[in-house]
Amino acid sequence: MVERATPHLIRVRVTPAYTVTVGAGVLDAVGVTVRERRLALVSDATVAELYEAQVAHALRASGHEVSTHRVPAGEDSKSPDRWLALQRAFAQGGLDRSGAVVALGGGVVGDLAGFTAATYLRGVPWYLLATSLLAMVDASVGGKTAIDIPEGKNLVGAFWQPGAVVSDVRTLRTLPLRAFHQGGAELFKHGLLGDPALLAGFENGLAPDWPEQALAEIIARSVAVKAEIVTADEREAGARVHLNLGHTLAHALEAVTDHGLPHGEAVAYGLHYATILGRLRGLQDLTGRTAALLAWAQPAPLPDVPFEALVPYVARDKKARDGRPRFVLLEDIGRPVVVDDVTWAEQERAWKLLKEEVER
Amino acid sequence: MVERATPHLIRVRVTPAYTVTVGAGVLDAVGVTVRERRLALVSDATVAELYEAQVAHALRASGHEVSTHRVPAGEDSKSPDRWLALQRAFAQGGLDRSGAVVALGGGVVGDLAGFTAATYLRGVPWYLLATSLLAMVDASVGGKTAIDIPEGKNLVGAFWQPGAVVSDVRTLRTLPLRAFHQGGAELFKHGLLGDPALLAGFENGLAPDWPEQALAEIIARSVAVKAEIVTADEREAGARVHLNLGHTLAHALEAVTDHGLPHGEAVAYGLHYATILGRLRGLQDLTGRTAALLAWAQPAPLPDVPFEALVPYVARDKKARDGRPRFVLLEDIGRPVVVDDVTWAEQERAWKLLKEEVER
Repeated sequence: MVERATPHLIRVRVTPAYTVTVGAGVLDAVGVTVRERRLALVSDATVAELYEAQVAHALRASGHEVSTHRVPAGEDSKSPDRWLALQRAFAQGGLDRSGAVVALGGGVVGDLAGFTAATYLRGVPWYLLATSLLAMVDASVGGKTAIDIPEGKNLVGAFWQPGAVVSDVRTLRTLPLRAFHQGGAELFKHGLLGDPALLAGFENGLAPDWPEQALAEIIARSVAVKAEIVTADEREAGARVHLNLGHTLAHALEAVTDHGLPHGEAVAYGLHYATILGRLRGLQDLTGRTAALLAWAQPAPLPDVPFEALVPYVARDKKARDGRPRFVLLEDIGRPVVVDDVTWAEQERAWKLLKEEVER
Repeated sequence: MVERATPHLIRVRVTPAYTVTVGAGVLDAVGVTVRERRLALVSDATVAELYEAQVAHALRASGHEVSTHRVPAGEDSKSPDRWLALQRAFAQGGLDRSGAVVALGGGVVGDLAGFTAATYLRGVPWYLLATSLLAMVDASVGGKTAIDIPEGKNLVGAFWQPGAVVSDVRTLRTLPLRAFHQGGAELFKHGLLGDPALLAGFENGLAPDWPEQALAEIIARSVAVKAEIVTADEREAGARVHLNLGHTLAHALEAVTDHGLPHGEAVAYGLHYATILGRLRGLQDLTGRTAALLAWAQPAPLPDVPFEALVPYVARDKKARDGRPRFVLLEDIGRPVVVDDVTWAEQERAWKLLKEEVER
């Protein structure tokens, strides 16, 4: 008999509240989590190959009626075209307000399927079955859904809370190591923002071959940090902006490389950039911690562009107010601050220091 | 000196609450209503020709920065393409979350600009400056925004409450009489649902050349009926479904004519159809009242289609649950009921009676 550890349940007290389940083998129990009978199951080609049949079986065994929808794997699927194609497929299939959307996959599928659910019939329920570390620690909490337009990533979307999130750590076995490292960057960020024990996990060599229960615990702790921040600020008016630690540069790096640098790797650079900016401004020097993250995450090389190439993207950042960029910096671990007086000269200096350091 | 009557202010207590202002000349005071500095003003070609300069002037005179955006007049502008084009224009113009969208026009512009606001940067504030009777009495309350897809009207959208609505009855002077009649049908519906005095307005020959204050009063009373219903049920889970009185058939008529029959005229037919269904089921006979509405509204002829042609659209109605259509009927004026056991035979009989009656 296989011993089955109890999954971690994190309650996210937004409106309406929902539960994130983190554990090993929890995908097989998804049928009881989803309340609606008629379901549209959305996944990407890669994930569908691995888990669509398993999930559809679990849902049907619990009496659900399931239609399946696949999109190509990769960020390009977060497009207005894919969004519209899903809307049309749902309508053609007769999905009505008594049904729900189930997203099976990582951040791309969650964003696309979640935003489709947010806008189909002016909003139907949705569920996220997260199969990447990034989705487990990031998309699982916050209710953010979005697609990309040529002017920028995630510029079109909605806040739309899922009915529940299920994160089965067994799916991490099939996740490419590079993708695992990307999720690690967001997990590390949560450590910097509110739980130093998460940082220790990296020093202990966090890896996909860790025991399932150890993986589940570190993921659940990371989810708890984000849930606490988001609950206090559901619509990103205040403290929630702290979650953007490292993201101002990250978004610019993604944009300037036309998404050639993946989000999680850009965030790893962005976190180190933020601690460099902090050190330049006399805050606690945390560059050693974020340098260790970079060593662990092994991101692709920084794009070889001058600082000027990043400026338009930094100025267009969603945190900007009246065109002025804002940065989240750290006074110390667990003490984020928002500053809107970082000069372009300071940013350029930090960019040069970051480049020098990673080229060594 | 021109005497200026006090405008009517109707508070809509949704989350967050906002105010509908109905009066003569109130467009000139819009600058103080809108809080955000940077504004994207969206209107259609016809309305822009008449009022865009006036509104942009009023806004700029109050210190707002205004970009203007025009779409072609007509329902075809409620398309994914127009929605995407607006998103891209807002992004190119650098509109950020400190800005807002201002919709100037009727229901089409309100729906399109409102849905764009609901989804741009995951939601920015918006305002509706209503220039049609339909928008004043209908789009002004409820927070419904939507676009059309080939599978149906309003299938994609969001609930997104405006920051305020301003309805200047002077704009009704330039509204075509046919459009005025369409708004009249929804106003009549509000009378049936909750304020018999509104019905008396029709017996007194409601017309665009009524004194401004009489127009403002009847519109404000109609808004109050809808506001009371919507406030009790913000997300259309319960009593708000009463507002769909007449709309099950109306949506099918619009769809089967490929929107050749305009919404308001379809609603006029739909209201009469609902009272015929009610009479067939032994409820209070209100067919005389709705027949009077048809005589007043002078809708285009009913499409010459057999009942079977309407069935697929009725079955796909958003009120449907698991494919079963639901109807709102009237036990009497002010006493709507939801019934889900109307047979297809009853519907076919009512459709034949409606056709016979309007062909006489």
